[in-house]
Amino acid sequence: MSGTMMYDELTINSLIDHAARFHGKTEIVSVETTGGVDRSEWASIGGNARRLGAALDGLGVAADARVGTIAWNNRRHLEIYFGAAGSGRVTHTINPRLTPEQLAYIVNHAADEVLMFDATFLPLIGALRTHLDSVRHLVLMGPRDSDAASHIPGLLFYDELLAEADPGWQWPHIDENRPAAMCYTSGTTGNPKGVQYTHRSIVLHSIAGNQPDGLGVSARDTVMPVVPMFHVNAWGVPYIAAQAGARLVLPGPNLDGESLALLIDAERVTISLGVPTIWMGLLAGLKKTGATAESMTRTVVGGAALPPSMIPAFRDGYGVELIHAWGMTETSPLGTLNHLLQKHEALSPEERAEIRLGQGRPPWGVDLRIVDEDGAVLPHDGETQGHLQIRGHWIVESYFNRDETALTDDGWFETGDIATIDPDGYMVIRDRAKDIIKSGGEWISTVELENIAIAHPGITNAAAIGARHQKWGERPVLLAVAEKEAPPDEADIREFYKGKVASWQVPDRIIFVDELPIGATGKVLKAKLREAYGDVLI
Amino acid sequence: MSGTMMYDELTINSLIDHAARFHGKTEIVSVETTGGVDRSEWASIGGNARRLGAALDGLGVAADARVGTIAWNNRRHLEIYFGAAGSGRVTHTINPRLTPEQLAYIVNHAADEVLMFDATFLPLIGALRTHLDSVRHLVLMGPRDSDAASHIPGLLFYDELLAEADPGWQWPHIDENRPAAMCYTSGTTGNPKGVQYTHRSIVLHSIAGNQPDGLGVSARDTVMPVVPMFHVNAWGVPYIAAQAGARLVLPGPNLDGESLALLIDAERVTISLGVPTIWMGLLAGLKKTGATAESMTRTVVGGAALPPSMIPAFRDGYGVELIHAWGMTETSPLGTLNHLLQKHEALSPEERAEIRLGQGRPPWGVDLRIVDEDGAVLPHDGETQGHLQIRGHWIVESYFNRDETALTDDGWFETGDIATIDPDGYMVIRDRAKDIIKSGGEWISTVELENIAIAHPGITNAAAIGARHQKWGERPVLLAVAEKEAPPDEADIREFYKGKVASWQVPDRIIFVDELPIGATGKVLKAKLREAYGDVLI
Repeated sequence: MSGTMMYDELTINSLIDHAARFHGKTEIVSVETTGGVDRSEWASIGGNARRLGAALDGLGVAADARVGTIAWNNRRHLEIYFGAAGSGRVTHTINPRLTPEQLAYIVNHAADEVLMFDATFLPLIGALRTHLDSVRHLVLMGPRDSDAASHIPGLLFYDELLAEADPGWQWPHIDENRPAAMCYTSGTTGNPKGVQYTHRSIVLHSIAGNQPDGLGVSARDTVMPVVPMFHVNAWGVPYIAAQAGARLVLPGPNLDGESLALLIDAERVTISLGVPTIWMGLLAGLKKTGATAESMTRTVVGGAALPPSMIPAFRDGYGVELIHAWGMTETSPLGTLNHLLQKHEALSPEERAEIRLGQGRPPWGVDLRIVDEDGAVLPHDGETQGHLQIRGHWIVESYFNRDETALTDDGWFETGDIATIDPDGYMVIRDRAKDIIKSGGEWISTVELENIAIAHPGITNAAAIGARHQKWGERPVLLAVAEKEAPPDEADIREFYKGKVASWQVPDRIIFVDELPIGATGKVLKAKLREAYGDVLI
Repeated sequence: MSGTMMYDELTINSLIDHAARFHGKTEIVSVETTGGVDRSEWASIGGNARRLGAALDGLGVAADARVGTIAWNNRRHLEIYFGAAGSGRVTHTINPRLTPEQLAYIVNHAADEVLMFDATFLPLIGALRTHLDSVRHLVLMGPRDSDAASHIPGLLFYDELLAEADPGWQWPHIDENRPAAMCYTSGTTGNPKGVQYTHRSIVLHSIAGNQPDGLGVSARDTVMPVVPMFHVNAWGVPYIAAQAGARLVLPGPNLDGESLALLIDAERVTISLGVPTIWMGLLAGLKKTGATAESMTRTVVGGAALPPSMIPAFRDGYGVELIHAWGMTETSPLGTLNHLLQKHEALSPEERAEIRLGQGRPPWGVDLRIVDEDGAVLPHDGETQGHLQIRGHWIVESYFNRDETALTDDGWFETGDIATIDPDGYMVIRDRAKDIIKSGGEWISTVELENIAIAHPGITNAAAIGARHQKWGERPVLLAVAEKEAPPDEADIREFYKGKVASWQVPDRIIFVDELPIGATGKVLKAKLREAYGDVLI
């Protein structure tokens, strides 16, 4: 055709090739599972990724096989991200916090041909391996370890595989619509479902999600993903850091607040990403260690509702801007990010913090809408609540090995969240659709009730549920974990709600419990609470 | 297929739809050709773009027609960018500074079916119209004007077309590899050649070129493209501003320094883009008007070599960071942008300015290399000079209506520049390949000789050429325009070169001229100078 532009496939190979070629000397810092810090650079990550591709070919692994990983955030995991997918295969990251039964289900459902794992998980793999039907090669992510070798017959060692591989091996041609990575949903209800990200979806997510109003990572940044690499590709950070040529700090297995605080100062991290519980731990860790987090300018937080106190705690205590983001396994995950607009510049810090508590706006590449129970589209007025739906270049269409589409008839993915969207495009999650309390035709947000409860000094954690009620259908009940030193009573908490919500939204009962049930991704399992406490008002 | 992501075409429609939907209230400020300021917003730009699509359908314009524009940077031009291309047609922007013969050649070669133009160009179109064979509709970009209507039979008026168009009209489905926009090269040698940008190439350029290390435009920015919208899509700014949801200031026809200085302050522009001569004018305009440019944080400069004095002039005088960029019509145009790395943070302002004088690093999406005369790839050592070649998602493959590829056998585009690339990926243009002076087997950069000459207070402009020489093949000759008040002589300038270049690089002759010949895109026409002065040393 005359009069056209060059065409090249959008592949993740192009991300690591760019990093190796134009940011080859930029450092990758990896806290190792076995202790110590490993220092490499984008050039060697790129070289090792190719060697891994050659090694997988050498092992006779199928050209489109799934390569499973059970591993922390570390250098070898990063190389597998690029090497397995870059060779045409699919990097399938697995959450080690699942039960052994779920792990076996996922590996077998994905039909992983290879399973690579950190030394931490040697006992787990030893126990599981006879249940993993499809796995032909188990690979320990490290140098040869004769103890491990004697423990698991046929065990391979990552460092040996790479040392023997052809350093001149070249990437194959890859169609951009082929899958590159895979992650299973947590599966709190039913079996986990596999989401496959394509080369194209990952590349578009990496560049559209890294705009100044997105993650905004540059070659001047040192990025530390605390969000695990087994959880939705660590929110895309490994890919984004490669295309941006950023310095990367991979924190390994020690994700407690003190370890993170010391690592941030030692490696002069400028931006970090993780879930709220991690940052609660970091705030405590900073206080305890006396670390200053002086280098850090911003923190991206997502994956669960954001405690309102966290924004001023980071801003006033450490000069760190907290960026609230929202997404799901099915959305790669960047669905929205909360950055302010030009018109917000005149607001006070408190007014800005109020806006920033919401989940933010979608970047170009995804579109959001809210609909009612019948699927009718609702207005973006900031008031009307509806079922949040999303579509775009990095949103799931169908789950792995399931024939049916995951979408509505008109092509949107139903998130399962209840949200509002305001005229500026700011989205606020009000609740999960299955959690929201339907009291006499009105909706009560459990998230809102929980945020208020947690703000009480005598409460360390709380979960609200809808309990069955003869007159109203459902009424709110709060399960609360009290501070041990000076536990409040039910009347204190009820009083605390006054003026913060309408009187009919105040929980009917406040029940103190020792702890809340937590799932594999760190979220409270409300289904279990409804099972246990759903009938307390009858 | 099971286990995949949603697929949607990458089209520029998605850019304007995003802006209209999530940044609908963000303002577009347009200085009108007929005087006054027009204020609209992304929502109405999007609405008008669709109306234009409907109007073109209504006129029976072919579904894949080229729609020519001869216009300044203004609101209607912005709507045509999205409306003509969004309807499946090609927005063909034409440089009004070309000669009437070149204009007619371009319109006929592109076979433009429609030609839309600003009132400024009414006399030009009146004179040209009988030579424009393919044009079926002439459209004046404004309301009905009875004088104009009587002057040109059948003349249509943009505002009338839109007022009558169906506001409910929807975009057609568009294949992302279809052309969306077109621009001809300046054609200093031979006839101009047409470069067609595809929907996909423009979208990828818009998001990959707007990383934090690219243009870095956010929804908090007010962007003013001074680079014309008839010149390589104003460097992509209209598309980038839409996807980022930025406020846009379109300066219309008045590009003198005083007008720009006053506009920057009045509209609180935060980032602007243009060629060095525009910024030289702006510096003078700021001084003259007393404007402070207080809102402006950065300026992107490209299109010609950057005078070294400009970085400190903006930095120290106005707190504006100057970002040097490089590209061509064939490269959409963003090929490189100059941002610093983490390791440069410890440098002094002067050392940083030295690095920033170069053309910078390629963003993800383009790749650069240098080769010798035989096409052998040269090292990225910052020393070795070679022919600069480029490839990537937004680089030309073939020119419009030319069958042959524009690329080398192995798929690279030859830029015609001589450059170095250092180990960090920083590229520095040393000269145009056809301009560089080959003296006794050594290369002498005319750009370097000119930069030194211009730094002399008695020189206002200068151009160096290689003049034929019996012994050395070529030797440098400098054509200089002297300051009128206190003109220097040849010996002064020769003395000024001492210590700044090797003695064998100092020009053999310095010839004072009244002015230098300038082409349609503002560049000195060195071919003309070589014609006139190429034999002065024989």
